Amino acid sequence: MITVEEAKHIILENTQNFGIEEIPFLEAVGRILKEDIVADRDFPPFNRVAMDGIAINYRFFEYGVRDFKIEGIQPAGAPQQTMVNASNCYEVMTGACLPNNTDTVIRYEDVDINTLMATINIDEITEGQNIHVQGSDKTKEDVLIKKNTIISAAEIGVLATVGKAMVKVAKQPKVMIVSTGDELVDVNENPLDHQIRRSNVYTLVSLLNDLKIPAKTAHIADKKSVLKEKIASFLQEYDVLLFSGAVSKGKFDFLPEVLDELGVKKLFHRVSQRPGKPFWAGVTDNCNVFAFPGNPVSTFVNCLVYFYPWYKKSVGVSSEEKTAILAKDLTFKPNLSCFLQVKLTSKKGQVYATPIKGNGSGDLASLIEADGFIELPKTEETEFKKGSVFPIIRYR
Amino acid sequence: MITVEEAKHIILENTQNFGIEEIPFLEAVGRILKEDIVADRDFPPFNRVAMDGIAINYRFFEYGVRDFKIEGIQPAGAPQQTMVNASNCYEVMTGACLPNNTDTVIRYEDVDINTLMATINIDEITEGQNIHVQGSDKTKEDVLIKKNTIISAAEIGVLATVGKAMVKVAKQPKVMIVSTGDELVDVNENPLDHQIRRSNVYTLVSLLNDLKIPAKTAHIADKKSVLKEKIASFLQEYDVLLFSGAVSKGKFDFLPEVLDELGVKKLFHRVSQRPGKPFWAGVTDNCNVFAFPGNPVSTFVNCLVYFYPWYKKSVGVSSEEKTAILAKDLTFKPNLSCFLQVKLTSKKGQVYATPIKGNGSGDLASLIEADGFIELPKTEETEFKKGSVFPIIRYR
Repeated sequence: MITVEEAKHIILENTQNFGIEEIPFLEAVGRILKEDIVADRDFPPFNRVAMDGIAINYRFFEYGVRDFKIEGIQPAGAPQQTMVNASNCYEVMTGACLPNNTDTVIRYEDVDINTLMATINIDEITEGQNIHVQGSDKTKEDVLIKKNTIISAAEIGVLATVGKAMVKVAKQPKVMIVSTGDELVDVNENPLDHQIRRSNVYTLVSLLNDLKIPAKTAHIADKKSVLKEKIASFLQEYDVLLFSGAVSKGKFDFLPEVLDELGVKKLFHRVSQRPGKPFWAGVTDNCNVFAFPGNPVSTFVNCLVYFYPWYKKSVGVSSEEKTAILAKDLTFKPNLSCFLQVKLTSKKGQVYATPIKGNGSGDLASLIEADGFIELPKTEETEFKKGSVFPIIRYR
Repeated sequence: MITVEEAKHIILENTQNFGIEEIPFLEAVGRILKEDIVADRDFPPFNRVAMDGIAINYRFFEYGVRDFKIEGIQPAGAPQQTMVNASNCYEVMTGACLPNNTDTVIRYEDVDINTLMATINIDEITEGQNIHVQGSDKTKEDVLIKKNTIISAAEIGVLATVGKAMVKVAKQPKVMIVSTGDELVDVNENPLDHQIRRSNVYTLVSLLNDLKIPAKTAHIADKKSVLKEKIASFLQEYDVLLFSGAVSKGKFDFLPEVLDELGVKKLFHRVSQRPGKPFWAGVTDNCNVFAFPGNPVSTFVNCLVYFYPWYKKSVGVSSEEKTAILAKDLTFKPNLSCFLQVKLTSKKGQVYATPIKGNGSGDLASLIEADGFIELPKTEETEFKKGSVFPIIRYR
């Protein structure tokens, strides 16, 4: 049985390239940028007035002049004007071009305006103040956003500014999420005593939705011939198949066998972890298969631990490891990696992880109280001390 | 001029109730639950087999029996069967009902199967092992998810399990985002030298999109009569108006005046902070008006600092304060609250905030390198020491 580290490594060696598509910029939030975004001109594109007030030629202030005749007004959005008499001033608005022949802006708070005359009422001003100088943020052709950035609201503002109405992003994989298990009925059905409702496929749909990946879902009965026929067609049509269930040692756990018969190359089966041990992973030339164990917490944690980093690497994004401080002593006996539900709290710049008492991998309700999982390493040790630091995976 | 604390307090005293709507559960991710979700039956609903293997009556193992005749198979999804001869065993699959007359499950790994006979090959088993007992996670009528929870993938799984195909959530506010400023042209236009493209409205659209709030956008020229007419109609139609620009001291900053003439009650104008100082906030009986300063960073930070908590309180969600450790000494002279762009990194369970050198509130590009803002308090002190802890606001 391989370790979590080995399994992750193998998964990340088998990424795909989904290609690139061009979409409207406002729809690109959460998607992965696939081009460098460069400044189409200087930022700001002109010497931009940064305060409402008056613009003067500093030389005159230096000579002791305090009263300036108002020669005109430069509003934002108007072409740059020219002050004819260098000893005059111009009223200027935030966002406007600085008028020709002026070099310093004094805000209204420091000026008395008397019809046609402005009197500066402070003694200290700095040459060039309150001007956002052309090109001082970025110059034309500078890279503003690097390829492979995850697009957030901040990037949307820059895309708008440089006029990228359409933007190149990584295409999303075509994903089919399949549940198996004859005990499952659909959400709007009333289960009999021995049945339960399908939930894992919807959890997976939501987890993929958080990555802006749309996914289809299907349910296949625990019948080998049906499984085989349907999966054969899915393998042609989709980039990724996610399964939930039928990978353990049960008499009706046909999935590994069926996938093998269909020519899917097994990468591994079973990982030394709890929950989620019977995870089966495989590939074909054009499809990755993630067959997660059917228990709710197993499916959930394996999607975060394996599918998420696989997707991110496929689209060119690196995942930063996050850590938290264990808030309570813990005992975990099996010599396996342990993914434990935790409540995460922030205190004085530190992140604390408090374990949530769950009731095994079937306990879906325990995920409600938690925000993520803490990963305790596979080790001979069985005691994990309060104050120790471990990797975490957040899901909210 | 009021402080950031006072401004936040006033904003939070003026929340709205947008009402409740019922939507398909899969569309509810990110929305705020407005009903308690209770268990429709026990969790698990029957004594559920937790391992593939055999089920026996423990008494016989205790008496020294190791060989058990296989009486039948209990698959997942089949009605509960009854083992007739108590000294026999049943093959049982994960997810199945435990057969009547059995009380203990031994996994296949610990059993040798020989056609019709199963031999247990270990010496220690525990009565009742590998059974997920009916009601052990939750019992019927237990509250599984509390009202006012933000719905994530974890909640989706539980909603599916209890058959909540439709779920009650907080309605979203109807929001109009308005830009002003004659210097602005649209994203797909080529600006003249003195013009720039509209970007703030799109940033705001994205920030609201992160809260699953759809918003409309409009641009109004800096002409008082036009502003007044359009805003009068928006005030009737929308729950929230967000403005960007026209609230400072410029000659064409008509907004506060126009809002006053339209009967919008001013809550405050100007907050002792940088950036974002000229923020204007007001209310009518049915509408909240957030008029943010037009500089990109000002609009961005004020949306996060004021609109986000206002929305969250309106829909019944409390915001937890997060903090980070300043990674560098900083000097900030004005006696104002300072919201500074920072890169956030996680190291040994601690979150460090490294300031990004920005170039004032007009520097949209500096937001790209940052992940959030750190809030330095308004104080006479001008030196902020590395290692000190301050509140942060993440936007990615």
